[in-house]
Amino acid sequence: MARWQGGARERLQAAALERFAEQGFDGTTVAEIAATAGLTERTFFRYFTDKREVLFQGQDDFERRFISAIDEAEDGADPMSTVGAALNRGGSFFQEERRTWSRARNAVIEADPGLRERELLKLSLLAVAMADALRERGVDGTVATLAAESGVTVFRVAFAKWVAEDETRPFPDLLTATVAELRDLVSPVLTG
Amino acid sequence: MARWQGGARERLQAAALERFAEQGFDGTTVAEIAATAGLTERTFFRYFTDKREVLFQGQDDFERRFISAIDEAEDGADPMSTVGAALNRGGSFFQEERRTWSRARNAVIEADPGLRERELLKLSLLAVAMADALRERGVDGTVATLAAESGVTVFRVAFAKWVAEDETRPFPDLLTATVAELRDLVSPVLTG
Repeated sequence: MARWQGGARERLQAAALERFAEQGFDGTTVAEIAATAGLTERTFFRYFTDKREVLFQGQDDFERRFISAIDEAEDGADPMSTVGAALNRGGSFFQEERRTWSRARNAVIEADPGLRERELLKLSLLAVAMADALRERGVDGTVATLAAESGVTVFRVAFAKWVAEDETRPFPDLLTATVAELRDLVSPVLTG
Repeated sequence: MARWQGGARERLQAAALERFAEQGFDGTTVAEIAATAGLTERTFFRYFTDKREVLFQGQDDFERRFISAIDEAEDGADPMSTVGAALNRGGSFFQEERRTWSRARNAVIEADPGLRERELLKLSLLAVAMADALRERGVDGTVATLAAESGVTVFRVAFAKWVAEDETRPFPDLLTATVAELRDLVSPVLTG
Protein backbone atom coordinates (compact mmCIF):
# COMPACT_ATOMS: atom_id res chain seq x y z
CA MET A 1 0.00 0.00 0.00
CA ALA A 2 1.20 3.51 -0.76
CA ARG A 3 1.91 5.56 2.32
CA TRP A 4 -0.82 8.17 1.82
CA GLN A 5 -3.47 5.44 1.80
CA GLY A 6 -2.64 4.39 5.35
CA GLY A 7 -2.76 8.03 6.33
CA ALA A 8 -6.17 8.56 4.78
CA ARG A 9 -7.67 5.60 6.59
CA GLU A 10 -6.37 6.83 9.92
CA ARG A 11 -7.55 10.37 9.30
CA LEU A 12 -11.01 9.08 8.43
CA GLN A 13 -11.11 6.92 11.55
CA ALA A 14 -10.05 9.80 13.79
CA ALA A 15 -12.54 12.15 12.12
CA ALA A 16 -15.38 9.64 12.47
CA LEU A 17 -14.74 9.11 16.19
CA GLU A 18 -14.60 12.86 16.73
CA ARG A 19 -17.94 13.40 14.98
CA PHE A 20 -19.61 10.36 16.60
CA ALA A 21 -18.52 11.55 20.03
CA GLU A 22 -19.91 15.04 19.42
CA GLN A 23 -23.06 14.30 17.44
CA GLY A 24 -23.78 10.66 18.15
CA PHE A 25 -23.46 7.85 15.64
CA ASP A 26 -26.92 8.32 14.13
CA GLY A 27 -26.46 12.09 13.86
CA THR A 28 -23.29 11.85 11.77
CA THR A 29 -23.11 11.51 7.99
CA VAL A 30 -20.32 10.12 5.85
CA ALA A 31 -20.09 13.56 4.21
CA GLU A 32 -19.32 15.13 7.60
CA ILE A 33 -16.70 12.51 8.40
CA ALA A 34 -14.98 13.05 5.06
CA ALA A 35 -15.10 16.84 5.44
CA THR A 36 -13.65 16.65 8.95
CA ALA A 37 -10.80 14.53 7.60
CA GLY A 38 -10.30 16.95 4.70
CA LEU A 39 -11.09 14.18 2.21
CA THR A 40 -13.88 13.35 -0.22
CA GLU A 41 -16.77 10.96 0.30
CA ARG A 42 -15.40 8.97 -2.60
CA THR A 43 -12.19 8.46 -0.66
CA PHE A 44 -14.19 7.39 2.40
CA PHE A 45 -15.91 4.67 0.41
CA ARG A 46 -12.56 3.41 -0.84
CA TYR A 47 -11.80 2.36 2.74
CA PHE A 48 -15.18 1.67 4.34
CA THR A 49 -18.49 0.37 3.04
CA ASP A 50 -20.40 2.56 5.51
CA LYS A 51 -19.90 4.57 8.69
CA ARG A 52 -20.46 1.54 10.91
CA GLU A 53 -17.53 -0.23 9.30
CA VAL A 54 -15.21 2.48 10.67
CA LEU A 55 -15.93 0.96 14.08
CA PHE A 56 -16.04 -2.73 13.15
CA GLN A 57 -13.43 -3.12 10.44
CA GLY A 58 -10.77 -5.72 11.17
CA GLN A 59 -13.24 -8.06 12.89
CA ASP A 60 -12.23 -11.08 10.80
CA ASP A 61 -8.57 -10.50 11.58
CA PHE A 62 -9.41 -10.10 15.27
CA GLU A 63 -11.33 -13.39 15.37
CA ARG A 64 -8.61 -15.17 13.39
CA ARG A 65 -6.09 -14.47 16.13
CA PHE A 66 -8.10 -16.42 18.66
CA ILE A 67 -8.83 -19.28 16.29
CA SER A 68 -5.24 -19.64 15.10
CA ALA A 69 -4.07 -20.01 18.71
CA ILE A 70 -6.59 -22.81 19.21
CA ASP A 71 -5.57 -24.52 15.98
CA GLU A 72 -1.90 -24.37 17.01
CA ALA A 73 -2.38 -25.73 20.55
CA GLU A 74 -0.53 -28.95 21.31
CA ASP A 75 -2.43 -32.20 20.95
CA GLY A 76 -4.00 -33.16 24.24
CA ALA A 77 -3.74 -29.65 25.74
CA ASP A 78 -6.56 -29.13 28.19
CA PRO A 79 -9.38 -26.94 26.85
CA MET A 80 -9.04 -24.05 29.31
CA SER A 81 -5.30 -23.74 28.67
CA THR A 82 -6.03 -23.66 24.97
CA VAL A 83 -8.62 -20.95 25.52
CA GLY A 84 -6.11 -19.07 27.68
CA ALA A 85 -3.63 -19.12 24.80
CA ALA A 86 -6.36 -17.83 22.49
CA LEU A 87 -7.16 -14.94 24.86
CA ASN A 88 -3.51 -13.96 25.05
CA ARG A 89 -3.17 -14.07 21.27
CA GLY A 90 -6.38 -12.09 20.82
CA GLY A 91 -5.32 -9.66 23.53
CA SER A 92 -2.12 -8.87 21.67
CA PHE A 93 -4.40 -6.73 19.51
CA PHE A 94 -4.71 -4.29 22.43
CA GLN A 95 -1.29 -2.67 22.61
CA GLU A 96 -0.83 0.53 24.59
CA GLU A 97 -0.81 2.75 21.49
CA ARG A 98 -4.30 1.50 20.68
CA ARG A 99 -5.83 2.30 24.07
CA THR A 100 -6.90 5.88 23.30
CA TRP A 101 -8.65 4.79 20.11
CA SER A 102 -10.30 1.81 21.82
CA ARG A 103 -11.50 4.00 24.68
CA ALA A 104 -13.08 6.54 22.31
CA ARG A 105 -14.58 3.77 20.18
CA ASN A 106 -16.03 2.10 23.25
CA ALA A 107 -17.70 5.33 24.41
CA VAL A 108 -19.36 5.73 21.00
CA ILE A 109 -20.61 2.14 21.05
CA GLU A 110 -21.93 2.34 24.60
CA ALA A 111 -23.95 5.43 23.65
CA ASP A 112 -25.84 3.71 20.82
CA PRO A 113 -28.13 0.69 21.42
CA GLY A 114 -27.73 -0.63 17.86
CA LEU A 115 -23.94 -0.51 18.10
CA ARG A 116 -24.02 -2.14 21.54
CA GLU A 117 -26.04 -5.00 20.08
CA ARG A 118 -23.57 -5.33 17.22
CA GLU A 119 -20.67 -5.49 19.69
CA LEU A 120 -22.44 -8.06 21.88
CA LEU A 121 -23.17 -10.18 18.85
CA LYS A 122 -19.56 -9.93 17.68
CA LEU A 123 -18.38 -11.43 20.96
CA SER A 124 -21.08 -14.13 20.91
CA LEU A 125 -20.02 -15.13 17.42
CA LEU A 126 -16.39 -15.21 18.59
CA ALA A 127 -17.39 -17.66 21.34
CA VAL A 128 -19.25 -19.82 18.81
CA ALA A 129 -16.21 -19.85 16.50
CA MET A 130 -13.86 -20.74 19.37
CA ALA A 131 -16.16 -23.56 20.52
CA ASP A 132 -16.28 -24.91 16.95
CA ALA A 133 -12.46 -24.78 16.75
CA LEU A 134 -12.19 -26.69 20.04
CA ARG A 135 -14.65 -29.33 18.86
CA GLU A 136 -12.64 -29.78 15.67
CA ARG A 137 -9.74 -30.73 17.94
CA GLY A 138 -11.84 -33.41 19.55
CA VAL A 139 -13.00 -31.52 22.65
CA ASP A 140 -16.41 -32.65 23.91
CA GLY A 141 -19.24 -30.40 22.75
CA THR A 142 -20.39 -29.18 26.14
CA VAL A 143 -16.87 -28.62 27.43
CA ALA A 144 -15.99 -26.73 24.26
CA THR A 145 -18.93 -24.37 24.69
CA LEU A 146 -18.30 -23.79 28.40
CA ALA A 147 -14.60 -23.14 27.85
CA ALA A 148 -15.13 -20.81 24.89
CA GLU A 149 -17.95 -18.86 26.53
CA SER A 150 -16.07 -18.48 29.81
CA GLY A 151 -13.03 -17.32 27.89
CA VAL A 152 -15.00 -14.68 26.04
CA THR A 153 -16.57 -13.54 29.30
CA VAL A 154 -13.11 -13.04 30.80
CA PHE A 155 -12.00 -11.24 27.67
CA ARG A 156 -15.02 -8.93 27.68
CA VAL A 157 -14.50 -7.97 31.33
CA ALA A 158 -10.76 -7.45 30.89
CA PHE A 159 -11.47 -5.21 27.91
CA ALA A 160 -14.01 -3.13 29.86
CA LYS A 161 -11.35 -2.57 32.50
CA TRP A 162 -8.67 -1.73 29.93
CA VAL A 163 -10.75 1.08 28.42
CA ALA A 164 -11.97 2.41 31.79
CA GLU A 165 -10.94 5.93 32.66
CA ASP A 166 -7.57 6.17 34.45
CA GLU A 167 -6.80 2.47 33.93
CA THR A 168 -3.10 2.08 33.08
CA ARG A 169 -2.40 -1.65 33.51
CA PRO A 170 -1.60 -3.47 30.26
CA PHE A 171 -4.17 -5.83 28.79
CA PRO A 172 -2.40 -9.12 29.70
CA ASP A 173 -2.33 -8.10 33.38
CA LEU A 174 -6.05 -7.40 33.27
CA LEU A 175 -6.70 -10.80 31.67
CA THR A 176 -4.80 -12.51 34.49
CA ALA A 177 -6.62 -10.51 37.17
CA THR A 178 -10.01 -11.29 35.63
CA VAL A 179 -9.30 -15.00 35.42
CA ALA A 180 -8.51 -14.94 39.14
CA GLU A 181 -11.76 -13.10 39.84
CA LEU A 182 -13.75 -15.68 37.91
CA ARG A 183 -12.09 -18.50 39.85
CA ASP A 184 -12.83 -16.82 43.18
CA LEU A 185 -16.41 -16.23 42.15
CA VAL A 186 -17.24 -19.63 40.74
CA SER A 187 -15.25 -22.21 42.68
CA PRO A 188 -16.37 -21.80 46.30
CA VAL A 189 -20.06 -21.50 45.58
CA LEU A 190 -20.10 -24.36 43.16
CA THR A 191 -18.22 -26.72 45.41
CA GLY A 192 -20.21 -25.62 48.47
CA MET B 1 -59.10 -13.96 26.86
CA ALA B 2 -61.74 -16.04 25.11
CA ARG B 3 -60.86 -19.68 24.74
CA TRP B 4 -60.70 -19.76 20.92
CA GLN B 5 -58.02 -17.06 20.96
CA GLY B 6 -55.58 -19.26 22.84
CA GLY B 7 -56.34 -22.04 20.42
CA ALA B 8 -55.66 -19.85 17.41
CA ARG B 9 -52.29 -18.74 18.72
CA GLU B 10 -51.21 -22.32 19.34
CA ARG B 11 -52.42 -23.48 15.94
CA LEU B 12 -50.48 -20.67 14.30
CA GLN B 13 -47.34 -21.51 16.25
CA ALA B 14 -47.57 -25.19 15.38
CA ALA B 15 -48.27 -24.39 11.73
CA ALA B 16 -45.32 -21.98 11.57
CA LEU B 17 -42.88 -24.51 13.02
CA GLU B 18 -44.13 -27.15 10.60
CA ARG B 19 -43.63 -24.87 7.60
CA PHE B 20 -40.27 -23.51 8.82
CA ALA B 21 -38.98 -27.06 9.33
CA GLU B 22 -40.06 -28.11 5.85
CA GLN B 23 -39.31 -24.98 3.81
CA GLY B 24 -36.87 -23.03 5.95
CA PHE B 25 -37.66 -19.77 7.71
CA ASP B 26 -36.89 -17.56 4.70
CA GLY B 27 -38.90 -19.78 2.36
CA THR B 28 -42.10 -19.51 4.37
CA THR B 29 -44.73 -16.78 4.08
CA VAL B 30 -47.28 -15.64 6.62
CA ALA B 31 -49.97 -16.61 4.11
CA GLU B 32 -48.71 -20.20 4.13
CA ILE B 33 -48.60 -20.31 7.91
CA ALA B 34 -52.16 -19.03 8.16
CA ALA B 35 -53.38 -21.48 5.51
CA THR B 36 -51.70 -24.41 7.27
CA ALA B 37 -53.43 -23.39 10.49
CA GLY B 38 -56.76 -23.04 8.66
CA LEU B 39 -56.89 -19.33 9.60
CA THR B 40 -56.61 -16.01 7.80
CA GLU B 41 -53.57 -13.76 7.54
CA ARG B 42 -55.56 -11.16 9.40
CA THR B 43 -55.89 -13.52 12.33
CA PHE B 44 -52.15 -14.19 12.20
CA PHE B 45 -51.41 -10.48 12.55
CA ARG B 46 -53.74 -10.26 15.54
CA TYR B 47 -51.24 -12.42 17.44
CA PHE B 48 -47.86 -11.74 15.83
CA THR B 49 -46.29 -8.69 14.18
CA ASP B 50 -44.34 -10.90 11.76
CA LYS B 51 -43.24 -14.50 11.28
CA ARG B 52 -40.13 -14.03 13.38
CA GLU B 53 -42.22 -13.10 16.37
CA VAL B 54 -43.73 -16.59 16.34
CA LEU B 55 -40.30 -17.77 17.50
CA PHE B 56 -39.36 -14.91 19.82
CA GLN B 57 -42.63 -13.89 21.45
CA GLY B 58 -42.57 -13.96 25.23
CA GLN B 59 -38.97 -12.77 25.44
CA ASP B 60 -39.77 -9.96 27.89
CA ASP B 61 -41.61 -12.36 30.17
CA PHE B 62 -38.70 -14.80 29.94
CA GLU B 63 -36.15 -12.14 30.91
CA ARG B 64 -38.40 -10.83 33.69
CA ARG B 65 -38.25 -14.20 35.45
CA PHE B 66 -34.49 -13.99 35.84
CA ILE B 67 -34.53 -10.35 36.90
CA SER B 68 -37.31 -10.81 39.45
CA ALA B 69 -35.33 -13.59 41.15
CA ILE B 70 -32.33 -11.25 41.42
CA ASP B 71 -34.48 -8.43 42.76
CA GLU B 72 -35.94 -10.76 45.40
CA ALA B 73 -32.64 -12.21 46.64
CA GLU B 74 -31.84 -11.62 50.30
CA ASP B 75 -29.66 -8.67 51.16
CA GLY B 76 -26.05 -9.74 51.30
CA ALA B 77 -26.61 -12.94 49.30
CA ASP B 78 -23.47 -13.80 47.37
CA PRO B 79 -23.67 -12.97 43.65
CA MET B 80 -23.33 -16.52 42.32
CA SER B 81 -26.10 -17.79 44.60
CA THR B 82 -28.29 -14.96 43.39
CA VAL B 83 -27.51 -15.88 39.80
CA GLY B 84 -28.25 -19.52 40.61
CA ALA B 85 -31.69 -18.52 41.89
CA ALA B 86 -32.25 -16.55 38.68
CA LEU B 87 -31.33 -19.56 36.52
CA ASN B 88 -33.73 -21.77 38.43
CA ARG B 89 -36.53 -19.22 38.09
CA GLY B 90 -35.77 -18.74 34.39
CA GLY B 91 -35.51 -22.49 33.90
CA SER B 92 -39.01 -22.97 35.27
CA PHE B 93 -40.06 -21.79 31.80
CA PHE B 94 -38.88 -25.14 30.41
CA GLN B 95 -41.40 -27.63 31.70
CA GLU B 96 -41.62 -31.08 30.16
CA GLU B 97 -44.70 -30.23 28.10
CA ARG B 98 -42.73 -27.49 26.37
CA ARG B 99 -39.79 -29.68 25.33
CA THR B 100 -41.19 -30.80 21.96
CA TRP B 101 -41.95 -27.24 20.95
CA SER B 102 -38.56 -25.98 22.15
CA ARG B 103 -36.76 -28.75 20.29
CA ALA B 104 -38.54 -27.95 17.03
CA ARG B 105 -38.01 -24.21 17.53
CA ASN B 106 -34.32 -24.77 18.21
CA ALA B 107 -33.88 -26.80 15.00
CA VAL B 108 -35.45 -23.97 12.98
CA ILE B 109 -33.20 -21.38 14.61
CA GLU B 110 -30.03 -23.42 14.16
CA ALA B 111 -30.80 -23.73 10.44
CA ASP B 112 -30.96 -19.97 9.82
CA PRO B 113 -27.95 -17.66 10.41
CA GLY B 114 -30.12 -14.59 11.00
CA LEU B 115 -32.22 -16.38 13.61
CA ARG B 116 -29.09 -17.79 15.28
CA GLU B 117 -27.75 -14.24 15.62
CA ARG B 118 -31.06 -13.08 17.09
CA GLU B 119 -30.96 -15.92 19.63
CA LEU B 120 -27.32 -15.19 20.56
CA LEU B 121 -28.15 -11.53 21.00
CA LYS B 122 -31.17 -12.37 23.15
CA LEU B 123 -28.94 -14.26 25.59
CA SER B 124 -26.28 -11.52 25.56
CA LEU B 125 -28.93 -8.94 26.40
CA LEU B 126 -30.20 -11.21 29.19
CA ALA B 127 -26.69 -11.27 30.66
CA VAL B 128 -26.47 -7.47 30.43
CA ALA B 129 -29.84 -7.10 32.18
CA MET B 130 -28.84 -9.55 34.92
CA ALA B 131 -25.53 -7.75 35.49
CA ASP B 132 -27.39 -4.43 35.73
CA ALA B 133 -29.81 -5.94 38.28
CA LEU B 134 -26.88 -7.22 40.35
CA ARG B 135 -25.18 -3.83 40.25
CA GLU B 136 -28.38 -2.17 41.43
CA ARG B 137 -28.12 -4.42 44.49
CA GLY B 138 -24.63 -3.08 45.16
CA VAL B 139 -22.59 -5.87 43.58
CA ASP B 140 -19.25 -4.66 42.21
CA GLY B 141 -19.32 -3.99 38.46
CA THR B 142 -16.80 -6.61 37.40
CA VAL B 143 -18.19 -9.28 39.69
CA ALA B 144 -21.71 -8.55 38.44
CA THR B 145 -20.66 -9.01 34.82
CA LEU B 146 -18.68 -12.19 35.50
CA ALA B 147 -21.50 -13.72 37.53
CA ALA B 148 -24.22 -12.82 35.04
CA GLU B 149 -22.24 -13.93 31.99
CA SER B 150 -21.21 -17.22 33.61
CA GLY B 151 -24.80 -17.82 34.60
CA VAL B 152 -26.04 -17.27 31.06
CA THR B 153 -23.31 -19.57 29.74
CA VAL B 154 -24.50 -22.33 32.07
CA PHE B 155 -28.09 -21.67 31.05
CA ARG B 156 -27.27 -21.79 27.35
CA VAL B 157 -25.42 -25.10 27.66
CA ALA B 158 -28.13 -26.65 29.84
CA PHE B 159 -30.73 -25.59 27.28
CA ALA B 160 -28.74 -27.12 24.40
CA LYS B 161 -28.68 -30.39 26.33
CA TRP B 162 -32.38 -30.19 27.17
CA VAL B 163 -33.40 -29.95 23.49
CA ALA B 164 -30.87 -32.55 22.31
CA GLU B 165 -32.33 -35.66 20.73
CA ASP B 166 -33.16 -38.44 23.22
CA GLU B 167 -32.43 -36.23 26.24
CA THR B 168 -35.01 -36.94 28.95
CA ARG B 169 -33.58 -35.33 32.12
CA PRO B 170 -35.57 -32.34 33.38
CA PHE B 171 -34.10 -28.86 32.96
CA PRO B 172 -33.15 -28.31 36.65
CA ASP B 173 -31.02 -31.48 36.61
CA LEU B 174 -29.22 -30.28 33.51
CA LEU B 175 -28.55 -26.91 35.15
CA THR B 176 -26.99 -28.65 38.13
CA ALA B 177 -24.88 -30.93 35.94
CA THR B 178 -23.65 -28.00 33.85
CA VAL B 179 -22.67 -25.97 36.89
CA ALA B 180 -20.56 -28.92 38.04
CA GLU B 181 -18.93 -29.14 34.62
CA LEU B 182 -18.06 -25.45 34.68
CA ARG B 183 -16.49 -25.83 38.11
CA ASP B 184 -14.42 -28.82 36.99
CA LEU B 185 -13.30 -26.98 33.92
CA VAL B 186 -12.38 -23.64 35.43
CA SER B 187 -11.12 -24.30 38.95
CA PRO B 188 -8.10 -26.60 38.51
CA VAL B 189 -6.55 -24.76 35.59
CA LEU B 190 -7.05 -21.35 37.12
CA THR B 191 -5.55 -22.32 40.46
CA GLY B 192 -2.72 -24.30 38.84
